[in-house]
Amino acid sequence: MKRWMILAVALVLPLFGTVGAGEGMWEPKQLPDLEKELKAAGLQLDPATLTDLTGHPMNAVIDLAGCSASFVSPRALVITNHHCSWGTLQYNSTEENDLLKNGFLASTLDEEIPAAPGSRVRVTVEVTDVTDQVTGGLEASLSGAERFDRIEQREKQLIAVCEEDPGHRCRVQGFYGGLQYNLVKQLEIRDVRLVYAPPKSIGVYGGDIDNWMWPRHTGDFSFLRAYVAPDGSPADYAEENVPYEPEHYLRVSAKGVDVGDYVMVVGYPGRTSRYRLPSELENTFEWAYPTTRRIFDRILEIIAEQSVGRPDVELKYAATVSGLNNANKNRQGMLDGYASSGMLERKRETMRALQAWIDSSAERKTEHASTLQALNDLIIKSQTTQERDMLLRRLGRSSMLSTARRLYRLSREREKEDADREPGYQERDMVPFRQRLQRMDRRYHPDVDKALWNFYLEEYQKLPADQRVVEFDGFLGLDDPSQLPARIDAMYAETKLGDTETRLNWIEADRAAFEASDDSFIRLAVVLYNGDREREAEQEAEAGEFQAARSRYMETMLAFLGSRGESVYPDANSSLRVTFGNVRGYQPRDGILYTPFTKIEGIREKHTGEDPFDSPQSQLDLIEAGDYGMLALESIGSVPVNFLSNVDTTGGNSGSPTLNGRGELVGLLFDGTYDSINSDWDFNTETTRSIHVDIRYALWVMSKIDKAHNVLEELGIDLAPTGR
Amino acid sequence: MKRWMILAVALVLPLFGTVGAGEGMWEPKQLPDLEKELKAAGLQLDPATLTDLTGHPMNAVIDLAGCSASFVSPRALVITNHHCSWGTLQYNSTEENDLLKNGFLASTLDEEIPAAPGSRVRVTVEVTDVTDQVTGGLEASLSGAERFDRIEQREKQLIAVCEEDPGHRCRVQGFYGGLQYNLVKQLEIRDVRLVYAPPKSIGVYGGDIDNWMWPRHTGDFSFLRAYVAPDGSPADYAEENVPYEPEHYLRVSAKGVDVGDYVMVVGYPGRTSRYRLPSELENTFEWAYPTTRRIFDRILEIIAEQSVGRPDVELKYAATVSGLNNANKNRQGMLDGYASSGMLERKRETMRALQAWIDSSAERKTEHASTLQALNDLIIKSQTTQERDMLLRRLGRSSMLSTARRLYRLSREREKEDADREPGYQERDMVPFRQRLQRMDRRYHPDVDKALWNFYLEEYQKLPADQRVVEFDGFLGLDDPSQLPARIDAMYAETKLGDTETRLNWIEADRAAFEASDDSFIRLAVVLYNGDREREAEQEAEAGEFQAARSRYMETMLAFLGSRGESVYPDANSSLRVTFGNVRGYQPRDGILYTPFTKIEGIREKHTGEDPFDSPQSQLDLIEAGDYGMLALESIGSVPVNFLSNVDTTGGNSGSPTLNGRGELVGLLFDGTYDSINSDWDFNTETTRSIHVDIRYALWVMSKIDKAHNVLEELGIDLAPTGR
Repeated sequence: MKRWMILAVALVLPLFGTVGAGEGMWEPKQLPDLEKELKAAGLQLDPATLTDLTGHPMNAVIDLAGCSASFVSPRALVITNHHCSWGTLQYNSTEENDLLKNGFLASTLDEEIPAAPGSRVRVTVEVTDVTDQVTGGLEASLSGAERFDRIEQREKQLIAVCEEDPGHRCRVQGFYGGLQYNLVKQLEIRDVRLVYAPPKSIGVYGGDIDNWMWPRHTGDFSFLRAYVAPDGSPADYAEENVPYEPEHYLRVSAKGVDVGDYVMVVGYPGRTSRYRLPSELENTFEWAYPTTRRIFDRILEIIAEQSVGRPDVELKYAATVSGLNNANKNRQGMLDGYASSGMLERKRETMRALQAWIDSSAERKTEHASTLQALNDLIIKSQTTQERDMLLRRLGRSSMLSTARRLYRLSREREKEDADREPGYQERDMVPFRQRLQRMDRRYHPDVDKALWNFYLEEYQKLPADQRVVEFDGFLGLDDPSQLPARIDAMYAETKLGDTETRLNWIEADRAAFEASDDSFIRLAVVLYNGDREREAEQEAEAGEFQAARSRYMETMLAFLGSRGESVYPDANSSLRVTFGNVRGYQPRDGILYTPFTKIEGIREKHTGEDPFDSPQSQLDLIEAGDYGMLALESIGSVPVNFLSNVDTTGGNSGSPTLNGRGELVGLLFDGTYDSINSDWDFNTETTRSIHVDIRYALWVMSKIDKAHNVLEELGIDLAPTGR
Repeated sequence: MKRWMILAVALVLPLFGTVGAGEGMWEPKQLPDLEKELKAAGLQLDPATLTDLTGHPMNAVIDLAGCSASFVSPRALVITNHHCSWGTLQYNSTEENDLLKNGFLASTLDEEIPAAPGSRVRVTVEVTDVTDQVTGGLEASLSGAERFDRIEQREKQLIAVCEEDPGHRCRVQGFYGGLQYNLVKQLEIRDVRLVYAPPKSIGVYGGDIDNWMWPRHTGDFSFLRAYVAPDGSPADYAEENVPYEPEHYLRVSAKGVDVGDYVMVVGYPGRTSRYRLPSELENTFEWAYPTTRRIFDRILEIIAEQSVGRPDVELKYAATVSGLNNANKNRQGMLDGYASSGMLERKRETMRALQAWIDSSAERKTEHASTLQALNDLIIKSQTTQERDMLLRRLGRSSMLSTARRLYRLSREREKEDADREPGYQERDMVPFRQRLQRMDRRYHPDVDKALWNFYLEEYQKLPADQRVVEFDGFLGLDDPSQLPARIDAMYAETKLGDTETRLNWIEADRAAFEASDDSFIRLAVVLYNGDREREAEQEAEAGEFQAARSRYMETMLAFLGSRGESVYPDANSSLRVTFGNVRGYQPRDGILYTPFTKIEGIREKHTGEDPFDSPQSQLDLIEAGDYGMLALESIGSVPVNFLSNVDTTGGNSGSPTLNGRGELVGLLFDGTYDSINSDWDFNTETTRSIHVDIRYALWVMSKIDKAHNVLEELGIDLAPTGR
């Protein structure tokens, strides 16, 4: 009964102090404008401190490219999600020691092992508005292709200058559809090592079944470390490298948060589409997502068929399968939300309001009238070949074909000056280029690759003749489909690109060598080359047109929203953002409430002994014994495992530190609820919730189960001895 | 935000006034002993009034045989669940007018239509403890068969005397495993008519998907009326019959209940097994339920296969399918609960405590020591042929075989004096006997019956030879299974029992006529007869042994529980019971709370337009308009649809009136939650919840959607006019 009371009170608390919190992935520089809302939500820091990217806490937040993370010790200990270390765990696994399954703990620096090739720790050190340098003086009369080229050229130049500072990587990112451009300068650390990850039965507890779901009980955390050369400069992996010494790192609060408390997530959200037109929304939900679901389902079937009785295949495609399942559940959630939420109608309503606002002023009519129509026309046009474009993209995803294409293209790009080369083929790209080729091995099996290619080819052959690629059809003899199976077999038999050594050797080869090769996929890449460039040019021209149309549209939209007094944040674009809100549950449906915290007893409740609900016995025993250490949250009477908040996050935010009002780390963002999946398009204050792993659960696992005492010590966490 | 506050408060409220409420299906005579608990829970009546079966409110509660119901007007208007009228709706449906789908409303008495054949309204008027008359003086030395016969004979005699009062039916019911026997006398009304039922899209909203689930939004209510001859005596249907005038009827409270309020359910719960031994629990959950699930799944497949493109077949088997789905979900819920709840271990714990209690006293040892062992031995013995017994039962379920067997047996029983005949074949049984044969037509199609029989035969043939029935194998030529399909076809081709007229004619036939018949199933019934009687005698002997052993065990158990100061109620056995508790939600799992009320907005949330989530448009419009009439519950800000309480119910309770502390009708019991399914074996105070349809939703539907103004008026409900 006491439990009921506590839960009920827990549901009342979040009502206070939440004004203005929730929606918004803010650029750090915007935060001072939100001081009132931040303070009301419970921030105890001066918002101005959050605009200093070289200060605490912003400088401690890390971009892992696809994930976020943070420094949590003066020796560059990094905390991120378990699922952000999945690739590294897989990379270091052997048939004898499956690190995913068993977990990993280095008790000393010496025992730390290299992260997967290409792993990077990037710290944003400077963000500069370069809109003028990128789009200044570009006449409206430019063709799409001209606009694209000019912007690309200018961006490359800005990057080149920026990267003259050694150890740094720079990029130019568009905001508001290209209305604003930022030059982002990041320190890039290339020697990343694995320190500690709990076993899969904790780190991935609930697996695909619980993915996107609440209630959740996943220990989605792991630890890495950033290493640099003895002189402190970023360097490739080398034994003599030493831990990096970050200027700032986050303090971990073992006290955590309670219901209603302020939380703030700092990280690198990947992509949202909050300002899209109704026609894009409709096409995405009625064509793109259902199509993707269908294709992903088939890919999963093919991988499953190929994996029967072959653990090596299963291991190589484990991450792919997990990613596809994740994406499928995401898409299904999108579709469910689309069907029930009325978001298309709301979007149309906004458009009608925007149109009315334009129409109600002669001045605005002059300035904005054609904006919507122009963008919409472009959208409709781009949709006409979307089926073909999608299939060509998928065909190009064959590991063999994509490798051959990239290698041959490199030989062609190398014929130009470095500055003139296509982004991705410049000297600055060669390390990741090589690593990607190296890494492929771990996630590639020729039988699966072939089976997938065969599936795409079947789909491709259903295209009308005028949408087909003549060179492709000719090379594969598609005029006689009965020969295709034999032809595909031959393609895979006659290529050596599956061999890592061979692949890497091709990096240095010149164009002539490719054109003389009898490797089947290289020959195909050569045959396709000119056509590929033509299609690429078309796409670039379209991108140029979009840049012009969408930035104009966003200008109109910003003026409109500003006229309504709304604060506006840009769509996510993998740049550093801050979102803030409060710990709170929600009502997903009539009759059901989700409480903001789960507790360790819920792990036992879900335990079946079968993956993904196969908790370690030691954990079950500790739970049964009620051995909470110092880590219980009084209001729930147990150790909290995961919690909900109303902050605004998306993919890419994974691993982001969740900070309390004092900027201390209290958890890690790792997921959103099923009801929140649509938030990429449409944030719903009532039901959009992010899911965090509670730091107290991480500390409890480290202390009680995995005995990661060295890590705890490095975090400065002193838990009372428990005699275990 | 306001909504959150209200919900949260709603969760706190149930904490008060619930001492001792919840578990217990009490015999009315036990209630005065529970006065303290009843008052604490909120009963405002004197508990003594609940012991008077001829007074208010008990006399207004009705036994529908399989369902419960109550009188709600002086003209014998009866309210029960929609699903208790399913058979009647199906019986009266035609291809032109599907009453299940469309619902039904009689605006005047003249428009009321007969319920399905065999429908009865029974009012318990007297319950007498007849233990002494039934088991007094039976020596322990009697064989099982002798014991069974003596008890059966005594019961038949008690019934015969009791039924000398015209218009009444009597039965003897065993309590506590035969430790106590009650003679139950019921007024039986045989002319029952349908008054009103909402359409399926309200009455079965959520269908099989929501069955056993919370949150729930089902309008599971309907109205019948009891008719008698003009002189007031029970009579078969006749046009001149008039509404019965019950001495008591329930008043409907349009005010309903709020969270935490007292509720009490009076009705006829079918069967629980709270005092079973661990060996029975284990066998049931590890053999019986999984086996049943497997068989039911196959039956459902067979019916689905046979229904393809045949709406007539689909209609005939709709109730069967619904019943099987319900049973399957029930079994699965049982199995889920068994796996996670540790109930077997708890049961063993109780047994150990019982054993320790016995062992701790020499006197108790003398009296009780052998009790447990004796019962357990019997249980183990009875399990040895359970596979065969189950399959023979299922083979006997073929409509053709069961009909032939019953008809032939009738001819044999009629050779005896009425008092000596087997129960079910006495003159008092002839009306239901005939009605059952009549009714069969509505739920029978030869193709389905044949396909099912074929499936059972396949399973039967897997039995070891020594468990097979020789006569059966011989008749069907099972020594050559290849001939079986043709043989089964012939069986169904050579029977006329599918014809109602023919079936009914056989009732009057004598034994010789059967033995001369060339009807295939009658010939089989004749061939099986002697073996059937032998197996029946074995079963009766076993039942006699069980009666002795289980009543002794229950005597021990009652003494033990009494020594711990626990109030004890008997297992459900379809006799009149009272259970009381409070309106309250619960926490089904870590991270989730179920609120005690659902509201009409939740109907819209679930609406997909597809059965079973196909709300009438008029209802959706009313919900959107927020047109609540006078029927909103303030604490939830809407019209409540269903609610949860912690009362103790099971199948058979369906349709039971849910009464408030003043004995007014505030809802109807219609289901339990998934987490409560195991409560038949193991009541869990934390998670066992019953589901009620809120009377306010019924009134809202009647007033706003179905315009059942005449019914509302008869209920004495005056809702403010709404202009619709």
